[in-house]
Amino acid sequence: MNLEVCFTPHQLPLYVVENSIVVVIDILRATSSICVGFAYGIDKIYPVESVQECVNLIQKYGYIGAAERNGEKLPGFVLGNSPFDYMNPILAGKIIALTTTNGTRAIQTAQKQKAKKIVIGAFTNQGALIEWLVEQKEDILFLCAGWKDRFNLEDTLFAGSMVHELKKYGYTSESDTVYASELLYVQAQNHIQAFLKESSHAKRLSHLNIQRDIEFCLQKSLADVIPAYENGYLYNLKLPQPIQASLKSYADL
Amino acid sequence: MNLEVCFTPHQLPLYVVENSIVVVIDILRATSSICVGFAYGIDKIYPVESVQECVNLIQKYGYIGAAERNGEKLPGFVLGNSPFDYMNPILAGKIIALTTTNGTRAIQTAQKQKAKKIVIGAFTNQGALIEWLVEQKEDILFLCAGWKDRFNLEDTLFAGSMVHELKKYGYTSESDTVYASELLYVQAQNHIQAFLKESSHAKRLSHLNIQRDIEFCLQKSLADVIPAYENGYLYNLKLPQPIQASLKSYADL
Repeated sequence: MNLEVCFTPHQLPLYVVENSIVVVIDILRATSSICVGFAYGIDKIYPVESVQECVNLIQKYGYIGAAERNGEKLPGFVLGNSPFDYMNPILAGKIIALTTTNGTRAIQTAQKQKAKKIVIGAFTNQGALIEWLVEQKEDILFLCAGWKDRFNLEDTLFAGSMVHELKKYGYTSESDTVYASELLYVQAQNHIQAFLKESSHAKRLSHLNIQRDIEFCLQKSLADVIPAYENGYLYNLKLPQPIQASLKSYADL
Repeated sequence: MNLEVCFTPHQLPLYVVENSIVVVIDILRATSSICVGFAYGIDKIYPVESVQECVNLIQKYGYIGAAERNGEKLPGFVLGNSPFDYMNPILAGKIIALTTTNGTRAIQTAQKQKAKKIVIGAFTNQGALIEWLVEQKEDILFLCAGWKDRFNLEDTLFAGSMVHELKKYGYTSESDTVYASELLYVQAQNHIQAFLKESSHAKRLSHLNIQRDIEFCLQKSLADVIPAYENGYLYNLKLPQPIQASLKSYADL
């Protein structure tokens, strides 16, 4: 069972993923928020690349709209990209149309390259994800959404934390991206938040006053969900679970 | 003065380099060997992408041929990619036609994107390079040659070591590749060779018995040269220097 890390969707064409599970990672904040949404009982999420496609789905089917560009919620949409937007019991059973700067693009790229299976990863669902991946016994590629096709640190750190855990279960790799990701994670693991303060994305988002979002997105294993992508939408591979107590308390922050 | 690190030539189109000095890095072994060659008094090196172009230059102008693919010297060529090939006094004043798996490709990519200036970097010329870069007072992009368009560790570590040094001279950056490169270098700096043992390239080359090459390529500042690219060839920006004593002793290894 082989591990691979791809630093950005731009590099994915260099990898063969037809026999791999692709784990899409966009820690700040798309995949973190998607996990929260499914923990709150969302039925399906349609991730689309353009705002126009998102509007079309809302108008045609009455889905709830979620749209973010450059870190900010677009005007006129119910939801943005903050995990706190998704901590709302009225979302249970609902269908969402979602477009974000990097996360939805990464999912589409993996789909275009015929990944064997596409699932969503974040610190927020890490425990469930490890358990599920280990059961599958398949090659895995971690696809970092990055920032506008470039490398970013927080997605790489999460990929590194997954590598660090999965190596305990017999996964191996000869890839330098895998090695570097794990090295960065091991260096950062006891102070990820301070570590990320120097990252470009955290600086980019700092004027948006989303420090609370960042703190939340770095919490591990709050949501017992595996969002998977099939037929154009994301759904929770696990049966709907009761909302996590840990999430509830976070919602009160 | 801004620093940037680009992990592979494949990603260079995402960066604007028209106002930057691009430092091309291919530690194992092209740029390390190029620096050695200029320390031994080579006049010019024509880096070309294809073996055929290399053959054409040899036949038309009588240049000395140097060709490597997948770590091995191609049959029929005088020189390969090993720094020890270039430690030969008969190369003084000569012109070389060179093609390697990754290094020459990186130079061509930087050229196509109209870099303000292209120079060659390696541990072997690090001291001279830092001194020269600091004098220029320009933005700098470190272009890692990588391995077949993917990230590799040894080029990134060298970029990180340059970032670590240049920050002392007032250079800044808000890029995650710069941050990650420096973090990796700081973690590795006291045991780079052991650190690289786990890297993909070192494993890939291990069957070629080039351990001596790797040890050599990680030695700092042996060659007091700045190879620069202009009009299709590399030349030494510094006046020809006497061969370094440190190189001489290494040649005896």
